[in-house]
Amino acid sequence: MNTTQAPSPQWLDDIRWNSEGLVPVIAQDAGSGRVLMFAWMNRESLALTAATGEAVYWSRSRGRLWRKGESSGHVQRVRELRLDCDGDVILLQVEQLGGIACHTGRQSCFYSVLRDGRWEPADPVLKSPEDIYG
Amino acid sequence: MNTTQAPSPQWLDDIRWNSEGLVPVIAQDAGSGRVLMFAWMNRESLALTAATGEAVYWSRSRGRLWRKGESSGHVQRVRELRLDCDGDVILLQVEQLGGIACHTGRQSCFYSVLRDGRWEPADPVLKSPEDIYG
Repeated sequence: MNTTQAPSPQWLDDIRWNSEGLVPVIAQDAGSGRVLMFAWMNRESLALTAATGEAVYWSRSRGRLWRKGESSGHVQRVRELRLDCDGDVILLQVEQLGGIACHTGRQSCFYSVLRDGRWEPADPVLKSPEDIYG
Repeated sequence: MNTTQAPSPQWLDDIRWNSEGLVPVIAQDAGSGRVLMFAWMNRESLALTAATGEAVYWSRSRGRLWRKGESSGHVQRVRELRLDCDGDVILLQVEQLGGIACHTGRQSCFYSVLRDGRWEPADPVLKSPEDIYG
């Protein structure tokens, strides 16, 4: 018996990871129902998310674990994890600390609306990025 | 001037298509706020979605356009299109005809909840797949 091996619970094996070992993740505000952001997780980040109760993503641009809120303080407390019918997308119900999920200082990353053939910002900046990250 | 070329509106060029020419799309019920499904669009399907007001996805498994509801009748009428801060994810607000988005006959594809280390189906089947597709 190899006791040094990382645990491999069935629920992680149930996920259909893509060719890069990632799964897309949607974060939804548990209170308002607002879709806050979309990101990716690898096996380790999803295991950490479930274990700690706080969202940990995989940053594809930085190639490392990204604990949401590590710089901004805008941690996401996870109330519920759901998996879709194909087993290849995760939906998180979260409590968004600070009420801001987006690095632009808005509640949601989905702040641009298609109007008259143009993407127009439709949501207010609640806190300037300088104040968040400065 | 080449009049045979397909139109290429700026709002489609604004999207950061992935290496396969696709963008991930989240469909949310405009009434309940429930996240219904996650799928992909290519340029043509997104243009058709905007032009027709009904969701048209790109089926990666079938390698063809997939007009949501073409078999089931569960068409999605699109109320709003949003783009995220990185320009690489679309959020649709939809009216889900029949109240069923999932091929299993459930309202949402996200019907499995993580409980005690297992994914458990938590939502009722509203209509059997045999009745939907039979």
